[in-house]
Amino acid sequence: MTADTVATASRPALDLAGLLAPRSIAVVGASPGVDRHPGRAIANLLRTGYPGRIVPVNPKYREVLGLPCVPSIADAGPVDTAYVLVGADRVLDVTRQCAAAGVAHVVVCTSGFAEEGAAGRAAQAELSRIARSTGTRIVGPNCIGVLSPVDGVIATPTLNIAQHLLPGSVTVVSQSGGMGVNVVNLATARGLGTRALISVGNECDVDVADLVTALAGDPHTSVIALFLEQVRRADAFVAAVRAARDAGKHLVALKVGASDAAARSSLGHTGAMTGSHDVFRTVMAEEDVHVVDSLEALVDVADLLSRGVLPRGDRLLVVSPSGGECSYAADRAEAAGLSVPPLDAERADRLRRLMRFGTPGNPLDLTGAVIGDPALLRRMLDEATAGDAFDAVLVALPTWSAHDAERLLPVILDAAAATRVPTVVSSWSAGAMTATVERLLQTSRVPTFTDTDAALRALGVVARPRRPRRPAPQPVGTAPPPAWAGSAPTEDAAKRFLAGHGVAVAREVLVAPGGDVLGAAAGLRRPLVAKQLCVGIEHKSDLGLVAVGLRTDDEVRAAVESFAAAVDTHRLQPHGILLAEQATGAEVIVGGVRDPDFGPMVLVGAGGVLTEVFSDRVLARCPETADEAQAMLRGLRIWPVLDGYRGARHDVAALAELISRVSHLLAGGDWIAALDLNPVIVGGAGNAAVDAAVHVREV
Amino acid sequence: MTADTVATASRPALDLAGLLAPRSIAVVGASPGVDRHPGRAIANLLRTGYPGRIVPVNPKYREVLGLPCVPSIADAGPVDTAYVLVGADRVLDVTRQCAAAGVAHVVVCTSGFAEEGAAGRAAQAELSRIARSTGTRIVGPNCIGVLSPVDGVIATPTLNIAQHLLPGSVTVVSQSGGMGVNVVNLATARGLGTRALISVGNECDVDVADLVTALAGDPHTSVIALFLEQVRRADAFVAAVRAARDAGKHLVALKVGASDAAARSSLGHTGAMTGSHDVFRTVMAEEDVHVVDSLEALVDVADLLSRGVLPRGDRLLVVSPSGGECSYAADRAEAAGLSVPPLDAERADRLRRLMRFGTPGNPLDLTGAVIGDPALLRRMLDEATAGDAFDAVLVALPTWSAHDAERLLPVILDAAAATRVPTVVSSWSAGAMTATVERLLQTSRVPTFTDTDAALRALGVVARPRRPRRPAPQPVGTAPPPAWAGSAPTEDAAKRFLAGHGVAVAREVLVAPGGDVLGAAAGLRRPLVAKQLCVGIEHKSDLGLVAVGLRTDDEVRAAVESFAAAVDTHRLQPHGILLAEQATGAEVIVGGVRDPDFGPMVLVGAGGVLTEVFSDRVLARCPETADEAQAMLRGLRIWPVLDGYRGARHDVAALAELISRVSHLLAGGDWIAALDLNPVIVGGAGNAAVDAAVHVREV
Repeated sequence: MTADTVATASRPALDLAGLLAPRSIAVVGASPGVDRHPGRAIANLLRTGYPGRIVPVNPKYREVLGLPCVPSIADAGPVDTAYVLVGADRVLDVTRQCAAAGVAHVVVCTSGFAEEGAAGRAAQAELSRIARSTGTRIVGPNCIGVLSPVDGVIATPTLNIAQHLLPGSVTVVSQSGGMGVNVVNLATARGLGTRALISVGNECDVDVADLVTALAGDPHTSVIALFLEQVRRADAFVAAVRAARDAGKHLVALKVGASDAAARSSLGHTGAMTGSHDVFRTVMAEEDVHVVDSLEALVDVADLLSRGVLPRGDRLLVVSPSGGECSYAADRAEAAGLSVPPLDAERADRLRRLMRFGTPGNPLDLTGAVIGDPALLRRMLDEATAGDAFDAVLVALPTWSAHDAERLLPVILDAAAATRVPTVVSSWSAGAMTATVERLLQTSRVPTFTDTDAALRALGVVARPRRPRRPAPQPVGTAPPPAWAGSAPTEDAAKRFLAGHGVAVAREVLVAPGGDVLGAAAGLRRPLVAKQLCVGIEHKSDLGLVAVGLRTDDEVRAAVESFAAAVDTHRLQPHGILLAEQATGAEVIVGGVRDPDFGPMVLVGAGGVLTEVFSDRVLARCPETADEAQAMLRGLRIWPVLDGYRGARHDVAALAELISRVSHLLAGGDWIAALDLNPVIVGGAGNAAVDAAVHVREV
Repeated sequence: MTADTVATASRPALDLAGLLAPRSIAVVGASPGVDRHPGRAIANLLRTGYPGRIVPVNPKYREVLGLPCVPSIADAGPVDTAYVLVGADRVLDVTRQCAAAGVAHVVVCTSGFAEEGAAGRAAQAELSRIARSTGTRIVGPNCIGVLSPVDGVIATPTLNIAQHLLPGSVTVVSQSGGMGVNVVNLATARGLGTRALISVGNECDVDVADLVTALAGDPHTSVIALFLEQVRRADAFVAAVRAARDAGKHLVALKVGASDAAARSSLGHTGAMTGSHDVFRTVMAEEDVHVVDSLEALVDVADLLSRGVLPRGDRLLVVSPSGGECSYAADRAEAAGLSVPPLDAERADRLRRLMRFGTPGNPLDLTGAVIGDPALLRRMLDEATAGDAFDAVLVALPTWSAHDAERLLPVILDAAAATRVPTVVSSWSAGAMTATVERLLQTSRVPTFTDTDAALRALGVVARPRRPRRPAPQPVGTAPPPAWAGSAPTEDAAKRFLAGHGVAVAREVLVAPGGDVLGAAAGLRRPLVAKQLCVGIEHKSDLGLVAVGLRTDDEVRAAVESFAAAVDTHRLQPHGILLAEQATGAEVIVGGVRDPDFGPMVLVGAGGVLTEVFSDRVLARCPETADEAQAMLRGLRIWPVLDGYRGARHDVAALAELISRVSHLLAGGDWIAALDLNPVIVGGAGNAAVDAAVHVREV
């Protein structure tokens, strides 16, 4: 059974077309006031020309906004979708009535459920049960509804839709109704059409995974844009994303909760934890989902993806008629993670022969002469992008008034459209002054921006080498729990366990209390590290229970004596003395956690205090092959150090193997909550040696 | 003589009022075609209602655009400003004629000077000489002119000014004409008025320092916004900035050239190096100039400064009626360097009593109920900001259509205006849909944004503890060059020099070739470090010329033997063996450079390979007191490690003293080009010990 079938077997497939284009919509709790939810929902449908049947439901009225009103959903005739717009205390009853009447989709916009304490959670659980037991699919509660510009169905009770919503191929799925609407509005303003907006609210039934699964099969959708506060049913979500990618859909996601404050806030207003942001980013990168940080980037990247703008790498050619803007764009490109490499000499020569004055380079300062000469501009762009020198081009233009815009912009847009690599055009927007510019940009075939920074930020997200998507995870052999599983093992037990699973640890000997320490030391290569193990003590060095650099027997003896004194002073219960060969090399940390959403994750980071101070670490889902682990290592900022900076040698292959084995242990041993190998000393040859505490805990 | 008088004594003060509001403007090279520079300059003046006299100058015409045209500047009558719009080959002649005719200001827009090779540089030098010898002040060349919306003088030949330029109190000084215009246009579009735009071009005479000095005394200017590609006359520039700050002006600066590509580009189109970006940022921070990275932030921060929005710290209260936006804004606030601390329990209780539902926190989710109730909203904001809990407030609103905007926004803006801490309001802009929102925002008393991210980025720049501006640098005693100055000293000579100036170095002994190494070792605490010094060899460890951790005489002897072998193998000229007590502690780097623009700078950074890998370093101008050096240390990311992370002790006071002494050496010894103490080992007590190479070079 693959992950896909696991994800979908547990619930019926969503009838997406039916949800987005219902032939009839009932508004339960209908009333004529258009400043309140029920009236506004009907007014929006009427104003935007909904082609289906609208049925107001309310025993108090015979007519609402000119439409005949029925007393209950049972009297409404065949209804595809019912909007439940009654108080929280009546939602369950009304929803049951809708299900009984055979309504396919119920949208519950009312809030006051899981986000409002125990009673709300219980009520929401009951909504879930209604959906599961009846087959009626429920969207919400605490949502703003479903809008489908492509089908002409604009049903939301929360805001007044006065403006035309541009139909297009980007489908927005949002856990925040307000932010979902912001995304659609920002998209509309930049000329990017929306296929649909689905506000999922608290996800009592229909959730993001259901929708992404269904959108994989939606012919109208090219891009799925997600605004997320948390990931529910992470396995199903990942399977859905894979299905959508397999179906050729592009995905872009923004997830809030990276900050403590946002995590507190999401917990407050949705009642759910946000999960680790780093883990989310890691999994999305592995699944080829573009992750963005800002609402603007969400919209801009969706636009680039909907136009198939997918540069194969980060090498950007910056082109502008303004020298100042050339420098500015180069700075901002590098800040956005792009590179602006110099022109090779031959290319520069060919361009110099074309230009009347100025010096060709990257950035390429076109000067006014080139901008005013369409044929020359096109030849310049052709020459500059010939071969495989660049992955993308930015043409950055000044704030142009109507006169300049009409004279110059169409020609530049044509030249940009004819380039052989993905090209975007930016021209600063300045309100009314640039109305003409914006009209010309929006109607062009090339992707355009009204802000150089926004253009570069969006390119910085999509421009990267295409890597094959990670194959679906394969089952790995399980590691049976050792005898001590269930309690925290001592350092030596943990290390023996690791060594038993092929993870290299430092050569060491445990000497029982009162045992022959010098005898044990005789068999080891000096210098030595000695550690006094004690029951229940983790931070040994804080208590003077670690001695390093021991070369002579006298030094070993002195260490043993000082341990005895420390044991006395702190009244500890000694478990033995661990003697190990002291390793030298680069320090890294290798560890693993079992993420509550996405399962076992392995991490490698700069070791010692650096992990915390510089946050230099890379995560991956378990298991990882040694090759994949090498790719992780290349993502570290300390990679140049590991890779032989100043001639130092580090056995990177052995370290990758160690990471892979740790990842397999985590993947296979579901009784392991976390592993923490800190530090791992990466020496010059042979296996990487583990030189410190390893913690293994039961789930 | 203070720095201020140094800066201004060398040249006459600029007549700023005369430059910005000339009573008469001559356009030399005038012609009627409005698509070329001379005609466009005249057309702009006519179209924008210039109140003074316009004199076209050209022997070929009797009349230009309806104005009488004179054959030469000598026939023009009294002229305050002449725009020289002739070919580069005629600029010098025409400028000399203008000076001879007593024209106060000449603006040379023509390009083809220092940015175009040796001949251009020579011509530009001649322009400088004309200015110095005649007293006529010259702006440019290679500029787009001077625009003064406050005085109604819109003189530029480069673009068609069709739009009204909003007058205001922000003066833009730009080395890039195009980017200067972009700044003014972006400001106009967001309702921020411009006092003037001065495009300085290649700065043959009037430069940024002159203008900032003059703007210090301009009653119409509240904010000076700088777009810079390089800093010329850095001392004068710093003095000008101090004078402007002393006069109560706020300054915000954007300097391009942080990236290699931008530095290449600036060199290409202005012929000048860009200078170190880190040094620029350091000096500007010390002078209380806000430095921004983006054009948008330049305009947004200028707006905040012009309204006096200067939060005293980074503690932000985020307020929104959308839960999703609450989380989003909290994430983005932290990304912008702001903190979003939780509400204290008492404050939360008071707010809970006010709210009908929801849970008060920070972010503060107002829910629709509060947004619809103006009195309640005001009380909520009052309660939330009472006392000293927050430094600033962001009220983040959804994309509102006209209906909602008119009903809700004025009330919210009033409530925001009444708060006791600086408050900004953001409401997403979405083109035509939000025209009403934008009108209401622009006319409000509070600073407003149409993008939450932009609001937070701008707040992140201005929100910081007010620190007293650095006092003007005092002269320090000079360090006389030692005998070896003029050639690179050996490590021991450099260390003796440092020790002689109170800089702590490791205890060590130099043993001459053939000397008694074991005898010298007898007087030192073990373990020892031994280094074989050789003439002309810097990277000793690469050649096997360093041995560490030597404890026994046997180990010392073995090291000496292996050095001898290495000397043989590499045919080196031995200078002696340096024996030092091996220090243990945290590694840092302390160094100093003489910046070509801003003079001697001291730096401290994470030591070893970390300096390069993590760029963890802090710069300051020399000299620094030990207290100031402590502040530098607190700016390091490894500060928590130095400050006793996990109980480790480091003598931070001794390190600060060492940094201060190094900074005094650099300030006083102008024969020192650079110092490089790498690493300095910061031990637990006593002085910080220098444990490695020190390079001292002659300028």
